[in-house]
Amino acid sequence: MRTRVGIIGAGPAGLALAHLLRLRGIDSVVLEARSREYVERRVRAGVLEHPTVELLREAGVADRLDREGMPHHGLSLRFDGADHRIALTDLTGRSITVYGQQEVVKDLIAARLEAGEPIVFEASDVRPHDVETDRPYITYVDADGTPQRLDCEVIAGCDGSHGVSHTAPSTVPSTRHEHDYPFAWLGVLAKAPPSHSELIYTHHERGFALHSMRTPEITRLYLQVPPEERIEDWSDDRIWDELGRRLTADGFTLTTGPIMEKGITTMRSVVTEPMRHGRLFLAGDAAHIVPPTGAKGMNLAIHDVWVLAEALGRYFGEGRTDLLDGYSDTCLRRVWRAQHFSWWMTSMLHQAPGADDFQRRLQLSQLRYTASSTAAATSLAENYVGLPYR
Amino acid sequence: MRTRVGIIGAGPAGLALAHLLRLRGIDSVVLEARSREYVERRVRAGVLEHPTVELLREAGVADRLDREGMPHHGLSLRFDGADHRIALTDLTGRSITVYGQQEVVKDLIAARLEAGEPIVFEASDVRPHDVETDRPYITYVDADGTPQRLDCEVIAGCDGSHGVSHTAPSTVPSTRHEHDYPFAWLGVLAKAPPSHSELIYTHHERGFALHSMRTPEITRLYLQVPPEERIEDWSDDRIWDELGRRLTADGFTLTTGPIMEKGITTMRSVVTEPMRHGRLFLAGDAAHIVPPTGAKGMNLAIHDVWVLAEALGRYFGEGRTDLLDGYSDTCLRRVWRAQHFSWWMTSMLHQAPGADDFQRRLQLSQLRYTASSTAAATSLAENYVGLPYR
Repeated sequence: MRTRVGIIGAGPAGLALAHLLRLRGIDSVVLEARSREYVERRVRAGVLEHPTVELLREAGVADRLDREGMPHHGLSLRFDGADHRIALTDLTGRSITVYGQQEVVKDLIAARLEAGEPIVFEASDVRPHDVETDRPYITYVDADGTPQRLDCEVIAGCDGSHGVSHTAPSTVPSTRHEHDYPFAWLGVLAKAPPSHSELIYTHHERGFALHSMRTPEITRLYLQVPPEERIEDWSDDRIWDELGRRLTADGFTLTTGPIMEKGITTMRSVVTEPMRHGRLFLAGDAAHIVPPTGAKGMNLAIHDVWVLAEALGRYFGEGRTDLLDGYSDTCLRRVWRAQHFSWWMTSMLHQAPGADDFQRRLQLSQLRYTASSTAAATSLAENYVGLPYR
Repeated sequence: MRTRVGIIGAGPAGLALAHLLRLRGIDSVVLEARSREYVERRVRAGVLEHPTVELLREAGVADRLDREGMPHHGLSLRFDGADHRIALTDLTGRSITVYGQQEVVKDLIAARLEAGEPIVFEASDVRPHDVETDRPYITYVDADGTPQRLDCEVIAGCDGSHGVSHTAPSTVPSTRHEHDYPFAWLGVLAKAPPSHSELIYTHHERGFALHSMRTPEITRLYLQVPPEERIEDWSDDRIWDELGRRLTADGFTLTTGPIMEKGITTMRSVVTEPMRHGRLFLAGDAAHIVPPTGAKGMNLAIHDVWVLAEALGRYFGEGRTDLLDGYSDTCLRRVWRAQHFSWWMTSMLHQAPGADDFQRRLQLSQLRYTASSTAAATSLAENYVGLPYR
């Protein structure tokens, strides 16, 4: 099989890239290790930045997003037992949209299949080859167990942090920056209407907690826990009890309901520099991981492929290589901004093990200042809704 | 001797308090361990916040400050070899004034002596007593070697971080929050015109450097050095050489000249809570120390005594104790804001020993963002020029 762009991974990055390339008349093949059912149900991020929504609209894949997505014009910082609203839209003129990552994936898969373009699901043992030549190719085994080869001009590695792309052998030295945070998030998806119409980021002496939602019927809640915590030790009752303690505030009642899903995720930052090895371009989680506090992971993935689609368009259309050569630097500037913002939100809101009273008072002063200064609140807001692409 | 308010220390805090009390008709005596010549020559801070200047003007002690002080409407963040100006006045409508602490001290001493009010210089072995009763008193030995006793109703401890006030015995438990920074500042006062009209805060791979000034003829320069560094190891040539390396930028030439004074200061944060023991009220460095990066030390001292003078006015005039009871909390809110701002500036600009590439890239992303976002620049600016007193 032959195509111009071989795309490894059918997450938001790979699917959005395939779609943006198709709009430019560039053919691609998407290879995905999992089944369609699996990727359409995988619960991950759920907050779309303003520029992400704009891009999906311009790309013609936002009909359902516009119908079902929940626009949010503010969020709350909860500390000292009270809510301090950051008026995102009043401060920036923009907003965020709550819409699950798997919904974006569903929309992009539907659009692609409707256009008759290929997605190869359940492709196992996927491997990129000869990425430093101008004839790279990908080998894999299809769902029937037959070995296959996909010849292409460019490979896009969109297969996440556990994928093969970022470990592809390369003669170009690349650097992997890593930072581990000393806590994890215990996340639950509960069949319960949200207790509040907006997100609540809570700084509490017992640890950070986040009230979020997926739909008007489904609440998404998180608790800061030690990284070594085991989910088996957290019964549903214990989870609700702890959420109740941390999310307490005047006039607030936590709505409870059956817990549909629960899990613990460690928090870390990873950045691969450069995001390119020859003809292999990394995008999304394959290139970088951010802690979830800033809700930036999926949004960075979408920005990466927006840059890459534009660069590939110029390359295939005009033979220009400058945008491809600048791909990594262009993306990394936004990636480091997001890393810093995520680190900033994380360190302001969490209880760091071993922190002394001095550090806790700095945190409180920062929270009070962020909640009371228009400049500081705007700074949080403009990062949260997403800085403009250009 | 008897007075209403016994003030220990003739630095900016003690002298400004005495002046503000006199304007309210409240008599006080200032006790100072050093000579007048010494305190009028002691080189310390040199940046006055907007609210500090406003207060000194309202108090009628700003004639010379208005003539000789150098108003600054911006400062530069220098990184990546280029200047990024933070337009303080455009962003906030306010400015800072460069005017040495010893000049403020001279003006306040002159005003006090002109009014015929007492300052006891060279008072040794100063000790506050019975601060938890309503008849506190201070003992000291005067310049002639004669033991003296000053009876008062209230004592103000304005004698800095090495003074006796903050160590006064008390039955009320107080907390001393401390934080040491892993570097120090080597500061020089040079007989050389400033190389640039504004302050330059420089982030450089060899360490932080600051270009500042005292007068149109005198430059004040700082270099980040390890805390264990010895000034004997820094010849004038070595200092100029290192300043030249760190302060390099297109179109910038460092003016050199004879070094008049040099020294190394460790950087630390200290906060005493509460800032009161019975009838003893701590103000300025006696209660808190900030690292110099945010230029907040003297400004906090002035704010403290503004709060204290108002509270004492209500107490002596109307018998109200609520403002005195709120003194510590009122001051501490601004103190913690300044601690956070100073920590923020410090950590953004310095090279932390042991920092990895990840942390260095976060720093750079933060610097670039601060220099390019109006909201972020305004946040820096409003803290730097001084948040409004109320």
